[in-house]
Amino acid sequence: MSSKTSKAVIQRLRGAAGEVVKTIQKGKNPSIGIPLRTLANVKWNEKRFIIEMGNAKQERFFFNVSMAKKFMQTFLVASSCQDLIESQKSASIRELFYMTKRSVADTKENTFEEQDESDEIIEDVEVAVNALREELNLKAAKKGSLVGDITIVDKGDTIDARRMGSGGWAIPSIVEPEIIQFRKCDAKFVLLVEKDALWERLNEDKFWQKHKCILLTGNGQPPRGIRRLLNRFVTELKLPVYVFVDNDPWGYYIYSVVKQGSINLAYESIRMAVPQAKFIGLSSYDRESYPFLDEVDIKLEEQDISRAKQILEYPWFQKKEWQREIRNMLKTGVKFELEALAKKRISFVSEEYLPKKIKDKDFLD
Amino acid sequence: MSSKTSKAVIQRLRGAAGEVVKTIQKGKNPSIGIPLRTLANVKWNEKRFIIEMGNAKQERFFFNVSMAKKFMQTFLVASSCQDLIESQKSASIRELFYMTKRSVADTKENTFEEQDESDEIIEDVEVAVNALREELNLKAAKKGSLVGDITIVDKGDTIDARRMGSGGWAIPSIVEPEIIQFRKCDAKFVLLVEKDALWERLNEDKFWQKHKCILLTGNGQPPRGIRRLLNRFVTELKLPVYVFVDNDPWGYYIYSVVKQGSINLAYESIRMAVPQAKFIGLSSYDRESYPFLDEVDIKLEEQDISRAKQILEYPWFQKKEWQREIRNMLKTGVKFELEALAKKRISFVSEEYLPKKIKDKDFLD
Repeated sequence: MSSKTSKAVIQRLRGAAGEVVKTIQKGKNPSIGIPLRTLANVKWNEKRFIIEMGNAKQERFFFNVSMAKKFMQTFLVASSCQDLIESQKSASIRELFYMTKRSVADTKENTFEEQDESDEIIEDVEVAVNALREELNLKAAKKGSLVGDITIVDKGDTIDARRMGSGGWAIPSIVEPEIIQFRKCDAKFVLLVEKDALWERLNEDKFWQKHKCILLTGNGQPPRGIRRLLNRFVTELKLPVYVFVDNDPWGYYIYSVVKQGSINLAYESIRMAVPQAKFIGLSSYDRESYPFLDEVDIKLEEQDISRAKQILEYPWFQKKEWQREIRNMLKTGVKFELEALAKKRISFVSEEYLPKKIKDKDFLD
Repeated sequence: MSSKTSKAVIQRLRGAAGEVVKTIQKGKNPSIGIPLRTLANVKWNEKRFIIEMGNAKQERFFFNVSMAKKFMQTFLVASSCQDLIESQKSASIRELFYMTKRSVADTKENTFEEQDESDEIIEDVEVAVNALREELNLKAAKKGSLVGDITIVDKGDTIDARRMGSGGWAIPSIVEPEIIQFRKCDAKFVLLVEKDALWERLNEDKFWQKHKCILLTGNGQPPRGIRRLLNRFVTELKLPVYVFVDNDPWGYYIYSVVKQGSINLAYESIRMAVPQAKFIGLSSYDRESYPFLDEVDIKLEEQDISRAKQILEYPWFQKKEWQREIRNMLKTGVKFELEALAKKRISFVSEEYLPKKIKDKDFLD
């Protein structure tokens, strides 16, 4: 990136380093303030409907036996990120681990032993300079595909998502505005599907054409690139987002991470969460409308039951509709998969199930 | 598909059913011959350099207590495939399971209990009518992306793989000629990369542009769609294929499945395997050319060692260069990941490692 954002991030990285240098010049113990990523510093913001980070910070000192190594690691990672941004290259967090791994001169110590350590420091740097890792030119795994009624510019190449055949556009890991821009968009909503098989089904049936939407899948829990893209669809294009998942606790959880973020990565919610997202299905009440589902339900396992009970307690599932939904799953003792809709007929999902849900505005929020 | 292939497959499906009907009309016990997918019926064809299926068959009879259910299942699956082909729709194997799952009238029996059962019957139908499951309009998981010096037509949409930005074209599960066609191609070779992070690295560095190639990743073991696509690149476009994987037994195995197929799916080798594929790295000898790798190697674990020893015994790894390669890994006791090349510098892989390998024709075959 060579944009305003990159310049701002570099400035913040240099700012942090500059403070340290000044402290050293004054002959004092240099330090850097790292906002705390502990559970105690995570807050549920009911009004904004996102999980966000509180204001607690920890000072990381250089002259402190328990902090010196982390202090060094922090600047090593920050400096590598600066190099990446300046050379306009991006790296996976695994590559960053290797880039920063070395033996410390005259010792038997390595800067990092395992990637766990550098991953943690990456999160420290993100919160310390208030930048998403993507803005530090670091990337997570890439997966998922997109088709639909939108034109996207990706690194200068124009992608007409209406003419992407059966495969679609492979969603990159970094979708920041410097790399990805939106052009002509006639979509009326965005549909995120948990499973690639259903995405292929809906694409084959040209669901996105008939219903004017953008169709994405993240092959399971959507990666960061997809969450960020959804966030941008909502904030920049003002599109509603519907999430379509298996009816099981894992499906509820995927929806909740898309909607209000996760506890572990609370500091990113503001740019990754999509509080406007709505749950379009599968609902445990669908079997009442579609009795054929009884033939293809799956008995809840022990772990499904305990996970559902956990989810019942989350503050962001306290709305009465959600309590009713989850309790009904527990009461009936069964779950359903997206593919189970094929029991009725292969295109039932695109010709009947989804159109009816959308027409009736039959969503959970 | 509405093509010649589809018609031929339907004809074979009907042919099998027709035989059964004739037998019934003669008042005899109807049966269908299923080629055996047992280890004993798998042969290593040294000349063609693929794992292929032998000629042994088993007759599956209707009037046979141990076979009646499978007989019924076989025709249930075959009939669903015919419906799919005729309606020009495709289904995932999970969807097919749901499509064919039902309770058998007047009994407590279901046609299928678990997907394992229908998956096995799918393989039976594939071998019985000599069609890939993709030709039966069934699909496996979809993953992986492609960029490069080629134009591809996907369901009538023209995909210029030179202008696919940072994301690329998402490779669909079914890439049969009825759906995917190749147009203008100036690529000189195909590079399959194990990991998406490296694919993104090489795409960011425009490696495919400088070296005129097609760049693919399958995010790990490549799915069937990618293997079939590689096979078509070789047979139709006569392009060499290079496989670029971690230096560990899993990397060797990925290469070998691409090259000569797998024991489990030996019957597909003829249309999925790429015996021309070459191994471009990482090699256990790379540390001799690049001593920096010593700083980022990983000690082999117990399971790596036993897997490497198994691989040493496979007939398709008997060439002396391969024996030397695998033995060297065991001797040194370490493995390397693709990302480890970033230790030198982030673009070392695209600027030095791969260009040198290609220039020196430093491959294993």
